[in-house]
Amino acid sequence: MSQTAAILDNYAGESPGLIANLARFLNAGALAGTGKLVILPVDQGVEHGPGASFAPNPDGYDPAYHVQLAIDGGLSGFACPLGMMEVCAPLALDRVPRLLKLNSATVLTKVQDQSIMASPRDALRLGCQGIGLTIYPGADKFEEMLEEARELVAEARALSLPTFIWAYPRGGTLTKDGETALDVSAYAAYVAASVGAHVIKLKPPTAHIELTNAGPAYADWAPNSTLPERIAHIRQAAYAGRRIVIFSGGARKDDAALLEEVAAIHQGGGFGSIIGRNVFQRPRAEALALIGKIIAIYAAS
Amino acid sequence: MSQTAAILDNYAGESPGLIANLARFLNAGALAGTGKLVILPVDQGVEHGPGASFAPNPDGYDPAYHVQLAIDGGLSGFACPLGMMEVCAPLALDRVPRLLKLNSATVLTKVQDQSIMASPRDALRLGCQGIGLTIYPGADKFEEMLEEARELVAEARALSLPTFIWAYPRGGTLTKDGETALDVSAYAAYVAASVGAHVIKLKPPTAHIELTNAGPAYADWAPNSTLPERIAHIRQAAYAGRRIVIFSGGARKDDAALLEEVAAIHQGGGFGSIIGRNVFQRPRAEALALIGKIIAIYAAS
Amino acid sequence: MSQTAAILDNYAGESPGLIANLARFLNAGALAGTGKLVILPVDQGVEHGPGASFAPNPDGYDPAYHVQLAIDGGLSGFACPLGMMEVCAPLALDRVPRLLKLNSATVLTKVQDQSIMASPRDALRLGCQGIGLTIYPGADKFEEMLEEARELVAEARALSLPTFIWAYPRGGTLTKDGETALDVSAYAAYVAASVGAHVIKLKPPTAHIELTNAGPAYADWAPNSTLPERIAHIRQAAYAGRRIVIFSGGARKDDAALLEEVAAIHQGGGFGSIIGRNVFQRPRAEALALIGKIIAIYAAS
Amino acid sequence: MSQTAAILDNYAGESPGLIANLARFLNAGALAGTGKLVILPVDQGVEHGPGASFAPNPDGYDPAYHVQLAIDGGLSGFACPLGMMEVCAPLALDRVPRLLKLNSATVLTKVQDQSIMASPRDALRLGCQGIGLTIYPGADKFEEMLEEARELVAEARALSLPTFIWAYPRGGTLTKDGETALDVSAYAAYVAASVGAHVIKLKPPTAHIELTNAGPAYADWAPNSTLPERIAHIRQAAYAGRRIVIFSGGARKDDAALLEEVAAIHQGGGFGSIIGRNVFQRPRAEALALIGKIIAIYAAS
Amino acid sequence: MSQTAAILDNYAGESPGLIANLARFLNAGALAGTGKLVILPVDQGVEHGPGASFAPNPDGYDPAYHVQLAIDGGLSGFACPLGMMEVCAPLALDRVPRLLKLNSATVLTKVQDQSIMASPRDALRLGCQGIGLTIYPGADKFEEMLEEARELVAEARALSLPTFIWAYPRGGTLTKDGETALDVSAYAAYVAASVGAHVIKLKPPTAHIELTNAGPAYADWAPNSTLPERIAHIRQAAYAGRRIVIFSGGARKDDAALLEEVAAIHQGGGFGSIIGRNVFQRPRAEALALIGKIIAIYAAS
Repeated sequence: MSQTAAILDNYAGESPGLIANLARFLNAGALAGTGKLVILPVDQGVEHGPGASFAPNPDGYDPAYHVQLAIDGGLSGFACPLGMMEVCAPLALDRVPRLLKLNSATVLTKVQDQSIMASPRDALRLGCQGIGLTIYPGADKFEEMLEEARELVAEARALSLPTFIWAYPRGGTLTKDGETALDVSAYAAYVAASVGAHVIKLKPPTAHIELTNAGPAYADWAPNSTLPERIAHIRQAAYAGRRIVIFSGGARKDDAALLEEVAAIHQGGGFGSIIGRNVFQRPRAEALALIGKIIAIYAAS
Repeated sequence: MSQTAAILDNYAGESPGLIANLARFLNAGALAGTGKLVILPVDQGVEHGPGASFAPNPDGYDPAYHVQLAIDGGLSGFACPLGMMEVCAPLALDRVPRLLKLNSATVLTKVQDQSIMASPRDALRLGCQGIGLTIYPGADKFEEMLEEARELVAEARALSLPTFIWAYPRGGTLTKDGETALDVSAYAAYVAASVGAHVIKLKPPTAHIELTNAGPAYADWAPNSTLPERIAHIRQAAYAGRRIVIFSGGARKDDAALLEEVAAIHQGGGFGSIIGRNVFQRPRAEALALIGKIIAIYAAS
Repeated sequence: MSQTAAILDNYAGESPGLIANLARFLNAGALAGTGKLVILPVDQGVEHGPGASFAPNPDGYDPAYHVQLAIDGGLSGFACPLGMMEVCAPLALDRVPRLLKLNSATVLTKVQDQSIMASPRDALRLGCQGIGLTIYPGADKFEEMLEEARELVAEARALSLPTFIWAYPRGGTLTKDGETALDVSAYAAYVAASVGAHVIKLKPPTAHIELTNAGPAYADWAPNSTLPERIAHIRQAAYAGRRIVIFSGGARKDDAALLEEVAAIHQGGGFGSIIGRNVFQRPRAEALALIGKIIAIYAAS
Repeated sequence: MSQTAAILDNYAGESPGLIANLARFLNAGALAGTGKLVILPVDQGVEHGPGASFAPNPDGYDPAYHVQLAIDGGLSGFACPLGMMEVCAPLALDRVPRLLKLNSATVLTKVQDQSIMASPRDALRLGCQGIGLTIYPGADKFEEMLEEARELVAEARALSLPTFIWAYPRGGTLTKDGETALDVSAYAAYVAASVGAHVIKLKPPTAHIELTNAGPAYADWAPNSTLPERIAHIRQAAYAGRRIVIFSGGARKDDAALLEEVAAIHQGGGFGSIIGRNVFQRPRAEALALIGKIIAIYAAS
Repeated sequence: MSQTAAILDNYAGESPGLIANLARFLNAGALAGTGKLVILPVDQGVEHGPGASFAPNPDGYDPAYHVQLAIDGGLSGFACPLGMMEVCAPLALDRVPRLLKLNSATVLTKVQDQSIMASPRDALRLGCQGIGLTIYPGADKFEEMLEEARELVAEARALSLPTFIWAYPRGGTLTKDGETALDVSAYAAYVAASVGAHVIKLKPPTAHIELTNAGPAYADWAPNSTLPERIAHIRQAAYAGRRIVIFSGGARKDDAALLEEVAAIHQGGGFGSIIGRNVFQRPRAEALALIGKIIAIYAAS
């Protein structure tokens, strides 16, 4: 488990309890000890609605389905909001590390903000090993979201729970392309790390450069031609590799494209993937098969 | 009481104290042990005004009238706001399980929000077995309401009190038809469950589909042709039947229509009804007779 | 003192300490034991300005003048804001029950809100037996006012102090006539009771019906032809007589009109009067004479 | 020291500790025991800027200069904001009573509000005998300022510290003349007393009458023809002389006018002066000479 | 170390623990005991983005690079936000005094405010000897920022940590030139001192005079012809030299201009420099050479 130890060295200032919880994710499932993570997040029922999320595979209406999938698939972790976790916790116990997603938004309102729907203490009560939070860098409420994030990170730390931050730029003066632009993504990762994230979740960055004031730097040296190169730059922006960054799978896509993206993340030095709809919107057997392929990519050296 | 036990299995992560309080409702009155609930809510005096609520049957101006009706009718529970409960509590003691409705709105103002008018600690002080809360999914203040709900759910849980959430979509970009649309109702139930509701109260859903972004899911598979089918879908959206969902009676209507609706809820797998004006806006003898018919429907297997 | 005991039965759920404090008002002065209250409120200095309030009788600039008037007049209670009470408390000690008026507005600003200028703990410190609060049903800030009221009621209850709520509809979509309309007054009394008021203060209601949505109820049955009938309806709306409702005297008027109004309140079953300017804006001897006549009306059976 | 004792009788409800601190001001310096106060406030550096305040006499840039001036001039007290007091406290120790001015505004922004820049606990830590607060009666934020004042007064009282309120009407619908109008000044003094001020600071009132709704009272009886008459009316409005009211000196003016104003304040029964720029914007020797003349006026019976 | 002792005399009211922490900066590195400070701040990654900050010298993506530079350069201190400090703290231990920068802004949003991203308790946990805060005198949110500053200063003091305030005027009615105008800079320094800053960071002031209401003072006597004269005026405004003021280096410029500016700060009596981009945006050897030259200027008497 040398990869785990090397990664944890970068969190040397944290308490043994928090480091042990972070180690649970790195030492769980099929990728244990490789320094790579594959996590199943199921917050789409709140974010997009239950029908939009689970109608393609109605087994997914049952919270128990997902946590069992994470266990059986040998995943590194499982994440969901409060109500679902209250169903899943007695079923999962210690068979898969779990993140309680503390805040969520719905498509019912257009406000670019997240509602805090659970507390770090709920995570502790439900036997989770970490908390998850979303921030929207660039949004009109970004300042408030950062201050909330600071408070939740501090509260979680006091309970020895690491924080995983979903950093999803949007809103304000950002263009739609800017939401996944390389420079914006690097900035989002940097700010998430700065507010104390232990693990950062981003969408895979595109080659687009958004910020004109960031222009000079990226004009001289823009590492944006290939996805592995862009992933490597994000890793650099996340304290030169000292903070774990994992990448989301996004909306349902064909398997070849998904696996190619995963391979590029691995090649660029990304720490793993957090993939929801691409996994749970298909029958269980197909889902387990896909998970197996993703794990195989990250397990290769 | 096997139905009670089967239902309570879905709340396995809660404290014995909270489960015991939830069991009080399931094991009370004429429907004890059937897994079905019929509850009398009397918050209309605040929501619509005392004259609009009680002039049809002036006995209703007296809080004591209602709690006695719930006791004599063999109901599963009784719900009302703070001031009324302060009158009712010494009269009811343990003869009917009671919910303190913590927040309320009035028609005196047009703001789509609820004022918090009591605390979970008031519920404990008054011998109640649970708290009631209203949220307005889709409203401009929905994010704040969710955060308030989270705090009250947590505070109630710390006192071993379960939370019943009235999920009433309205406001924002929702159309009037959208307030009871099947997709919006399912979404509302899902979000209420996600913030930690133990029991969810909805209006019976219509066949209307509101959300264009939820379209694909419901386009392929819209279980909306009959009320039982729609009720079954709501049950599915509430964690595949793992969370209790009950349905309101709405404005005064003729008895045949009301009883037909109740039968459809029962047929679709709904867990019961929460009926106010249809009961208390008629003389006591007639009210008891109607309650008897509703109970008879749910008592049938 | 059988009237006192009968009234206090309706507060059976409260602590002996709170009931004892409420009993202090019912058992004080010339109306002790009759179940009726006449209270002197002196918050007009803040609400309308010292000149507008006290120039007609400059003795009134001195807080000590008023509390002595309440004692010498055999009144049931005395109410004023913090600063005045700080002067009056060492002078009154236990010679007249006292309410600390916690919130106030000024005519210096046009905002329809009240500033909280004292706390329930101040009431305890100053030897008061209750707190007073104003709410504005219908105002744009009504929701916030209700939530503040809830907190202050709870805080006062924890100190065994009963709460007297001044329910003064205004603002929002209410017309000027609507502020004292019978339906709006009944609604205001009901909401004040619902948030936990032990005693409610209203202006005498007029025959006007304001709310169109309350129309059907009041269309069928509008008890609004005489003031005693209207008072009786307010009593009904206040939990069928289970909550004490007293009525204000309003702006200075001629004595005959005032005494006629008091007689109508008594005839309709009102619990008493709370009269300020009509009392303190005249010389002391005349004020005592008027108080004597008001008391005589309520003392008659 | 009979004047001190007579004044303190009006604060009989306060703790011995608070009364002792208030007595410190009344028993300090050249006016000890006369019932009169002359206080040096130095908050102009924050309110108007250091250059605008201290360039006329650059010795004033040093906080130590001012507190030494207060000591050497035999003043009753010294007031300044936090940072200055942190320099002055170790120098003054118990040689002059001191007020910590808790809130301040700057001319850098146009908002009619004050920022709270220190706490009552800071006053205790720095050995002060009281706190100072500014409120703006009539301003758009007046309600919030009153609520903040209430909290700070309560917090200071819990530490046995009296509160001095700077009551400076402005903003909202007030005209410029209205800011020092007799009726508005009397109202401001009354509200400051009502929120619990122990000492009130006003600007000397003019003969202008501002409030139309206060018109009748002042129409019948307007004590506004001379400054002593107006001062006497302010004293009346401040609970018939039961609360100490002192008057500010305002912007730099010629000495004759200033001393004439002081004499009028004394003649009208005012309790003293609080004079800053007229003192510290001249050389030390001249400042001490002027202080001597002011003290001599108040010392005369 | 007589200079250290003389400076610390001005903080005589603080606890020995806080003074010891302030002394750590004055007694560290190559300038120990001279009364001068040169500090390396690395908050530009958050303020301007990681690419804009570190692309010129990619070693800077790694937090460890900067703290080692501060140690090896013999600097008086090192400052950075939370996430970076969490990496740096285990590496630095007691080899360089450290400030935790508690608030930060990003160029992703246009709001002129700072998000609080860490707490004084975080500074203690990470072994820092002080906290850093930015305020924007003149900004629309300046009042809120001052109140937040007051709370953080108090919280830090309770942990014996001194506060360094970055006072950067901007926004509201200030012109771009006004942000560094002499009068505005002096005012900003004065307000920062007034809210309790122990050390103040400013940009070097220009000769521009911005405030028309400050005009008279500066019209008679404007010490603005040379940079040393302006620095001396800032020192005067900071309580006549009783508070430490240091000056930032600003955007990357040529070395000769930078060193000339440093010499002028020294000549005018400034207490030192806080220089980031001019140091870390060049290779390490060049950076150490430049640091050496800056230190040499301040070390000269």
